[in-house]
Amino acid sequence: MSKNTTFTFDGDSGVLLSLNLMIPKITLFPQTADINRQGHLVIGGNDTVELATKYGTPLYVFDEVTIRNLCRDFKREFSRRYPDTTVVYAGKAFLHRALVEILKEEGLALDVVSAGEIYIAETAGFPMDSVIFHGNNKSAEELKLALKKKIGRIVIDNMDELRMLTSLAEESSHIPEIMLRITPGIDAHTHGHLTTGATGSKFGIPLYKAEEAISTAMAAASLDLVGLHFHLGSMITEFQPYLDAIELELEMAAEMKNKYGFELEELDIGGGFGVQYTLESQVPDVGLFADRITERLLERCQAFRLPPPALNIEPGRGIIAKAGVALYGVGNIKDVAGNTYVSVDGGMADNIRPALYAARYEALVANKADSKENDTVSIAGKYCESGDILIKDIALPQVVSGDIIAIPVCGAYCIPMASNYNAALKPAIVMVKAGESRLIRRRETTYDLIRNDLV
Amino acid sequence: MSKNTTFTFDGDSGVLLSLNLMIPKITLFPQTADINRQGHLVIGGNDTVELATKYGTPLYVFDEVTIRNLCRDFKREFSRRYPDTTVVYAGKAFLHRALVEILKEEGLALDVVSAGEIYIAETAGFPMDSVIFHGNNKSAEELKLALKKKIGRIVIDNMDELRMLTSLAEESSHIPEIMLRITPGIDAHTHGHLTTGATGSKFGIPLYKAEEAISTAMAAASLDLVGLHFHLGSMITEFQPYLDAIELELEMAAEMKNKYGFELEELDIGGGFGVQYTLESQVPDVGLFADRITERLLERCQAFRLPPPALNIEPGRGIIAKAGVALYGVGNIKDVAGNTYVSVDGGMADNIRPALYAARYEALVANKADSKENDTVSIAGKYCESGDILIKDIALPQVVSGDIIAIPVCGAYCIPMASNYNAALKPAIVMVKAGESRLIRRRETTYDLIRNDLV
Repeated sequence: MSKNTTFTFDGDSGVLLSLNLMIPKITLFPQTADINRQGHLVIGGNDTVELATKYGTPLYVFDEVTIRNLCRDFKREFSRRYPDTTVVYAGKAFLHRALVEILKEEGLALDVVSAGEIYIAETAGFPMDSVIFHGNNKSAEELKLALKKKIGRIVIDNMDELRMLTSLAEESSHIPEIMLRITPGIDAHTHGHLTTGATGSKFGIPLYKAEEAISTAMAAASLDLVGLHFHLGSMITEFQPYLDAIELELEMAAEMKNKYGFELEELDIGGGFGVQYTLESQVPDVGLFADRITERLLERCQAFRLPPPALNIEPGRGIIAKAGVALYGVGNIKDVAGNTYVSVDGGMADNIRPALYAARYEALVANKADSKENDTVSIAGKYCESGDILIKDIALPQVVSGDIIAIPVCGAYCIPMASNYNAALKPAIVMVKAGESRLIRRRETTYDLIRNDLV
Repeated sequence: MSKNTTFTFDGDSGVLLSLNLMIPKITLFPQTADINRQGHLVIGGNDTVELATKYGTPLYVFDEVTIRNLCRDFKREFSRRYPDTTVVYAGKAFLHRALVEILKEEGLALDVVSAGEIYIAETAGFPMDSVIFHGNNKSAEELKLALKKKIGRIVIDNMDELRMLTSLAEESSHIPEIMLRITPGIDAHTHGHLTTGATGSKFGIPLYKAEEAISTAMAAASLDLVGLHFHLGSMITEFQPYLDAIELELEMAAEMKNKYGFELEELDIGGGFGVQYTLESQVPDVGLFADRITERLLERCQAFRLPPPALNIEPGRGIIAKAGVALYGVGNIKDVAGNTYVSVDGGMADNIRPALYAARYEALVANKADSKENDTVSIAGKYCESGDILIKDIALPQVVSGDIIAIPVCGAYCIPMASNYNAALKPAIVMVKAGESRLIRRRETTYDLIRNDLV
């Protein structure tokens, strides 16, 4: 491709088909990804090489158009098939005030798992009654906070928590609306660290104890039981686990209705919708998930003679992963025993997923985005550990020191799991839109490393 | 054991043999570990239950006596066999001003891997000429900083870095003393993430390129090449990899002496000395490592007709791991499908090692340290991920909500790799000694979560 080729930015439909065909990796980047006449990767109308120069590297870039489009995709695809759907963004994937403001504008609810996440949501002015509070080990302080803030839903994880909240709510003027997290005992066929709905999980109340939990919750005058929740795990690429879980939960709900008059007003099927990290990986799109899930839900409600409940879905990664790009500066290049290591200025301190889950990523050289990829290299992090390899064996053009590496699909679970390993400074984050960029998180300074130290 | 039994605190020799025999796990805790008449675990003369109450949980407790004793063990065991030994603490295991001050008093040198670690060392007043600067991808800014601060040794990792430092040093008034990191191509038989000396590692200059590196460095008038470095990895429990690496490096050094007049003034054999995390694991003690390593070094120097070089060893974990204890508060207890989960108020956000390396730990119930362990449970973290299990299947006494779990050998690679996952607040850290405790790092506040955010 000639460096003089230009591509028109198209914020609504994403990049042009011709670009996708010539540089397939571009489809993994945010929807506004483009390549300019300098051959530089462009996100949200911003030349990423200029972003790297302006803000330094490592840099995380979030594309507002992609975030909004993905919020709308989930809303549209589920609501047109099942109007009473609430899309609840799972904050653990990435949480920041700038994002929370977008979620609020897009009409999403928010799922939080700690007092810290409640705090971030609140500082962003997110309505507390649209917040759902999860967690397998909420503290008494966290439950008191949830009562005080009148959090929209508290999802009870276990019997100890049910008892604790019952008595805390008795002392409170607020009757919380609660859901019970019932673990269906289904293996979602994902990474062992990421499956949460299988038998023996640390999460939730096992199905065989659901009756006790439901009857206890219904009997608690200080609580308002509105429904059930399950969550199968993360990075799920099959429909069947959701369908099976819906079957099991509805069957049980129907029995509880007959026995105790339990009304399933809301069903929260969790999140875990897989996203595409590499060109090889196959992930169904949201419409297909919505199709199969809502079809099964309606069909089973009819079979069990249950009025269709309000539906909550909880995508986190599904909304934010693709919107984020990590930019790294290249340092030394090393040829060792047939491997070429391209060393970058970040690594496992800002993205532990390759080391933790053997997660696989693609990459482009941001300043040579249209160059022929005739080299195979490994992208090594800067940190003192052999596990700190961001990508093993990836096709790239010839890379030299000073190049900028862009890794797509870095919007979820990178920044939230970032550490200061090797006294690394956590990266800066920018939000881009229509040719503008704004810094939403400053890069840490060395002083941040000792800020809380006392001598 | 009766709750009325008392144990005398013995700061020099560690706990009494009788206690070790009755409660074997106590041997994994810091050397001052004891159990008081309330049956509470005591560290450095402090009741850990009182520490948990005073400072909150999760809490990391470091025992000054253990740190000093382990510094002295390494110094003594190597120096008495090989007087010209410098013990260099590897800061990546855990770095904090309070620790750096102890290292300075104990006469250790310090190994750093980033500008951030140099900053921490400097704020603690550590002499810069006793600092060794490592890293596989040092930036130009970091090398300039090292020159400006007259860092004691810069360990060159690769040819690009050698060229960069040569030219940076030409513009500087300071001639840096450098070592070359030569990767011997030896597998240290440890976790794949932790082996760094094998063929194909991202670290160092492969042995077959050593000649080019040495001759280039010797020819650079702006650099003073003083020796060679290798580092085989972490958690090494065998002698043989060290012995083989010494053999290979000395053989090469002898050849370089003959060919270029290269004088091996210093040999840095890195660290990686394994420590005992569980009762089952077998780790040779420092004296045995010292014995075998120095014997081989002297013998091979004689064989290759080299004057014995000054020796650097770089223990990090070996000094700090055992000195640290993590204390957690117990929340809910959950029986699921034959597993009992004891949920604690920390987990993978403060200690990612179980999830990242399948690292295995032991634990005691700090407030029932002398109780019979007739239950088997798993200790689950508080974070929203199935991989967040701190310990699977461990024998403990009956645990109830409000108990304090104490995990030994948490001094290394926990705090440095801690994240804010799930908006977790990084834990407080206390240093204990002779019945006194002092907070050396405040627990983060929710404000810390958004401190660098801009809107």
